[in-house]
Amino acid sequence: MSSNRTAPLVQVPRGLAGVVVTDTEIGDVRGAEGFYHYRQYSAVELARTRGFEDVWHLLVHGDLPDPEQRTAFTAEVAGLRHLPDEVREALPAVAAASRVAGPLAGLRTALSLLGAARGFRPVYDIDAGRRRADTLAACAAVPTLLTALYRLGQGLEPVEPRVDLSYAANYLYMLTGEEPQARQARAVEQYLISTIDHGFNASTFTARVIASTGADVAACLVGALGALSGPLHGGAPSRALDTLDAIGTPDRIDPWVRERVLAGDRIMGFGHAVYRTEDPRSRMLREIALGFGGPRVDFAVEVERHVEAILAELKPGRELHTNVEFYAGVVMELCGLPREMFTPTFAAGRVVGWSANILEQAADPKIIRPVARYVGPEAPVPVPAPAPVPAGI
Amino acid sequence: MSSNRTAPLVQVPRGLAGVVVTDTEIGDVRGAEGFYHYRQYSAVELARTRGFEDVWHLLVHGDLPDPEQRTAFTAEVAGLRHLPDEVREALPAVAAASRVAGPLAGLRTALSLLGAARGFRPVYDIDAGRRRADTLAACAAVPTLLTALYRLGQGLEPVEPRVDLSYAANYLYMLTGEEPQARQARAVEQYLISTIDHGFNASTFTARVIASTGADVAACLVGALGALSGPLHGGAPSRALDTLDAIGTPDRIDPWVRERVLAGDRIMGFGHAVYRTEDPRSRMLREIALGFGGPRVDFAVEVERHVEAILAELKPGRELHTNVEFYAGVVMELCGLPREMFTPTFAAGRVVGWSANILEQAADPKIIRPVARYVGPEAPVPVPAPAPVPAGI
Repeated sequence: MSSNRTAPLVQVPRGLAGVVVTDTEIGDVRGAEGFYHYRQYSAVELARTRGFEDVWHLLVHGDLPDPEQRTAFTAEVAGLRHLPDEVREALPAVAAASRVAGPLAGLRTALSLLGAARGFRPVYDIDAGRRRADTLAACAAVPTLLTALYRLGQGLEPVEPRVDLSYAANYLYMLTGEEPQARQARAVEQYLISTIDHGFNASTFTARVIASTGADVAACLVGALGALSGPLHGGAPSRALDTLDAIGTPDRIDPWVRERVLAGDRIMGFGHAVYRTEDPRSRMLREIALGFGGPRVDFAVEVERHVEAILAELKPGRELHTNVEFYAGVVMELCGLPREMFTPTFAAGRVVGWSANILEQAADPKIIRPVARYVGPEAPVPVPAPAPVPAGI
Repeated sequence: MSSNRTAPLVQVPRGLAGVVVTDTEIGDVRGAEGFYHYRQYSAVELARTRGFEDVWHLLVHGDLPDPEQRTAFTAEVAGLRHLPDEVREALPAVAAASRVAGPLAGLRTALSLLGAARGFRPVYDIDAGRRRADTLAACAAVPTLLTALYRLGQGLEPVEPRVDLSYAANYLYMLTGEEPQARQARAVEQYLISTIDHGFNASTFTARVIASTGADVAACLVGALGALSGPLHGGAPSRALDTLDAIGTPDRIDPWVRERVLAGDRIMGFGHAVYRTEDPRSRMLREIALGFGGPRVDFAVEVERHVEAILAELKPGRELHTNVEFYAGVVMELCGLPREMFTPTFAAGRVVGWSANILEQAADPKIIRPVARYVGPEAPVPVPAPAPVPAGI
């Protein structure tokens, strides 16, 4: 039995399911009510009424900014969009190495590099203000890094950030090199706000475990990005679009869905581990999609209607609705984002949530370190001979 | 209350102290006995009798290699020392960006890059053989990456790896460009073996949390490296040397140590959270140091003797001995390793232990995801007006 602790051993459910690892003031998800919040505000209401920078301020400072704070904060983070020279110079090589692995793996590398270049220091060695500044420097650079890596992968030059655009608008601008339509920029902004945080999950937990050792903000964010890249973490909005493509035309909805459901397959974009009602993010994103309109949106709505009806018929008693992936994919497509950038775009919102968690964790220093139970053969067994040390050096 | 789970909520000690998060067959620490093991073998006996590659094979394959397996395994990992071109080309920029943050932050970036360049795939999408191959590719490259980053930071060209040297000897060779003395190579090898694993700790736990999402091996290792870089993780062998330097001469041992202890300061290199007896790694490393001999070793032994006597006098009833840091620092100095490479050298052994943990975790897919308890103000509170959406895009 591992005795890294003098504390008594505590048996808990596998995967730490239900284990309360920390208190938080950042937010919560109330699945039965179909409601989630950032601090004391409805996340969806924030997305409907505020800009990304306002909500970012709420997450890392603890309150919504007044007009002066907003001006100062917006200028501060806009000024952090430009990359240090060493990072900019390394990006072509990072993009080349990440050609197969994709932009999320590229961001993992680039953010690690940025943290070093910016001189991020262990969170326990610096005060709360410097910690927050490090998170701002990391988050503000994420759209610059992602779009530069994407464009380099396409054989295009990166586009320099503009400080006069919002976080979301500048992201789309750097991706395409053209000013986005206001409607697209606002749709992406609302999506980004809605994905900043959503209860406790493996990437948020990873960020907090690393922060609990006192490591720097980049170390924490890079670990969280790693966890996000795991298939069990979920959150791949492109899969829901793949479903729309696979169905193809309205007349194929019914047979396609019935065949999948009867074969026991999940329909990507439907069902959620927490919500027993409609996913509040899904509702908001559907409205945004309907604001754009067009045949693609009509088709998505029709697929949603049919799939929900078929699932209600074939799986009675289970409330299966579209999850955030379904309309997130539709909205990102309407905004001109390529599919391989869907999950990276999710990360561009979520880094702010991770940052809030890192700051909260660092404010209350205590390493997170559980134990393992040794269940192998009894030790020690003598090391078998002949076991010569390899010859020479 | 975060309801990411249908499981009932479980209250546990802060920092998950004593919480059994997993079963393991990799090894264990028995603090009361001053004993730790890898699988069923004493780790120190392995270090005394085997080469690094043998123990590496034990950790990732589950058993010690027979002569044929050893030959094949040694050739396999030696062949993975060379870096892909995209990684090699990026290293000068990584070294430049990590000038202040140091080689561990540089390794974090470089290992992330290597995983992408080698096409590492999510551990849940590949079989056990491919997973193991990914861990070998990562670990085998660590000395190449570390020494290249160090030399670039010194304005020197990296030294190409040699496949005819052992892991440890090749590490020293790439660092200096000269074949190491056999005694130095073997001392470093024994140190590396002794640090592969040591019970559950925050970096090992981080690697397992990320692996539990199904992320690729690089994502897991990069997260673990991040946790290792945290000051609370511990393991900074250079600090113990700093103690020797601060004392300076034998006549100053007594007053220096008494002053520190009476002021309530910890003496770096002494005391351990787990061992109530002598640290078994410390005993082995002391012997290795004594094999080298010389005034520095004599001074270290004298400091150890005096400090233990003073601690026994001033803190009676507590068994305070040298920990692994103390003689690890002395041994690494005797082997010509610069102080800034002490912790990176530790990482060059520990990556094998993290790898074994990643492989064990991936073999039993279940996401590790605890919950958080919301303790902020009651929600929802209406989002305050005036809250205009920022004008324009």
